[in-house]
Amino acid sequence: MRLLCGAHDGQTGVFAVTGDSAVNLTAAEPGFGADLSAMIASAELRAKAQALAAQPGVVEVSAITPALPVAAPPTIICLGLNYVEHIKEGGYDIPDYPALFMRGRNSLMAAGAPMVRPSCSEKLDYEAELMLIIGKRGRHIAEEDAFDHVFGYTVFNDGSVRDYQRKTHQWTPGKNFDATGAVGPVVVTPDELPPGAAGLRIESRVGDEILQSSNTSNMIWGVARTIAILSEYTTLEPGDHIALGTPPGVGHAKKPNPRWLKPGETVEIEIEGIGICASPVVAEGAQQAAQ
Amino acid sequence: MRLLCGAHDGQTGVFAVTGDSAVNLTAAEPGFGADLSAMIASAELRAKAQALAAQPGVVEVSAITPALPVAAPPTIICLGLNYVEHIKEGGYDIPDYPALFMRGRNSLMAAGAPMVRPSCSEKLDYEAELMLIIGKRGRHIAEEDAFDHVFGYTVFNDGSVRDYQRKTHQWTPGKNFDATGAVGPVVVTPDELPPGAAGLRIESRVGDEILQSSNTSNMIWGVARTIAILSEYTTLEPGDHIALGTPPGVGHAKKPNPRWLKPGETVEIEIEGIGICASPVVAEGAQQAAQ
Repeated sequence: MRLLCGAHDGQTGVFAVTGDSAVNLTAAEPGFGADLSAMIASAELRAKAQALAAQPGVVEVSAITPALPVAAPPTIICLGLNYVEHIKEGGYDIPDYPALFMRGRNSLMAAGAPMVRPSCSEKLDYEAELMLIIGKRGRHIAEEDAFDHVFGYTVFNDGSVRDYQRKTHQWTPGKNFDATGAVGPVVVTPDELPPGAAGLRIESRVGDEILQSSNTSNMIWGVARTIAILSEYTTLEPGDHIALGTPPGVGHAKKPNPRWLKPGETVEIEIEGIGICASPVVAEGAQQAAQ
Repeated sequence: MRLLCGAHDGQTGVFAVTGDSAVNLTAAEPGFGADLSAMIASAELRAKAQALAAQPGVVEVSAITPALPVAAPPTIICLGLNYVEHIKEGGYDIPDYPALFMRGRNSLMAAGAPMVRPSCSEKLDYEAELMLIIGKRGRHIAEEDAFDHVFGYTVFNDGSVRDYQRKTHQWTPGKNFDATGAVGPVVVTPDELPPGAAGLRIESRVGDEILQSSNTSNMIWGVARTIAILSEYTTLEPGDHIALGTPPGVGHAKKPNPRWLKPGETVEIEIEGIGICASPVVAEGAQQAAQ
């Protein structure tokens, strides 16, 4: 299934998407709620969604304003360095364990919503990433069981404020500015993709300018290995988000000059078979004035 | 007020503590719920708590099994290096911005609950820290307004698995093992403490062995400055937890040999005027067998 959470006719719900049209699951069954949390928790709802998704969609996808797939993910864990060429462009050595950091939920926004360049920095950068959403609780998950714990895959723009990311050796502040990390819009269940969402083209661009272009098969730590590594130290919970790192081509490493995102631009992240996550960049003050 | 969340006679509730006795706020008014979330959100409940707390307590504090003050903090942000002598013992330079990392909620447990030494490492370490709990939402909070955003202060043991903390330059895994970070038990409102909880003795020990002994006035970034720095990049939410870093004396820096926590020991963190957070250390397998 291809699932989209969002607002239509003033109501936020969960939609099953086929092509340009969608079935409003929440209108058919209020138990689906306003995001994927209920479906992640209930095999019965997932079966019901499958049946409803087979019906002809009467809602135009373009009429749905995307919301976050999970409004309040319990934990958001990100791999920092997962593509060899991106590690080299950042000046890091190839590691034998992933660099891991966390984002708070206020750093996330839905696809289509403004990506806010803060007033304290002009160094706002994009990062195209595969994001997975955990469906089943687990600790010490073996690699061979890892796919059982994946609810679905979506697109992530791990927006980063580079000077704050490197204020100290810990990247947290630069990865946690409000409304810099775009998630979605569509969450695709694993049955619709290659195992571990491997072999998919991943790209970022502004208009015709292609900024990053790679393939999810170039990840050092794939989905199964990542789940095994993380669950060695933490219990993964339903709704947890795991971002799988970005390929080369980020703005701060562009030569001869860095290529920062500017207000007025729209940055798009696309992953083959999943979708496009587009974010209009706005200056912090302008966004506050519009609220 | 001194507030304690926990279970008594099979019911979890919020208690107002005076000396060795406590008033069961939740029994008097079910709206207090099972943790501090409702009180943090409601000025009316806070006023009601104040009135109830003045009554004689009929519950013995020792009969209450502590629970987390906030069961699901939206975000848990930690300062890594905030006492000059601790920075030196870790081999770091004195920074001009705090090293920030995040913990997920599964890494936390209540005071009194087992602190779990994972099966993959023997390098479990303690860190005595002041923890503040945010009471009021805010972004771009000025230092002079920061205290208005504090709901209260509690004790934190920022338990760390040192080899996993230094697997890469990002500390996340070593700071996020399940059930390694002890919070509580008592949350003290700011009116009962010096401004910014400054000038308080802070100590960690195992039995008679004093491991860390310092004073919260030795923090580089105090409470107000920390709130200003964090809220430059993120909106702080009611219930957010901020851990303010640890003084010198951590186990990995002890000479001539590191001093790791061992199953069977109980580590205590004490902050003057707030309380003692005690954690019995157990081996991972032993804890699972006991569940």
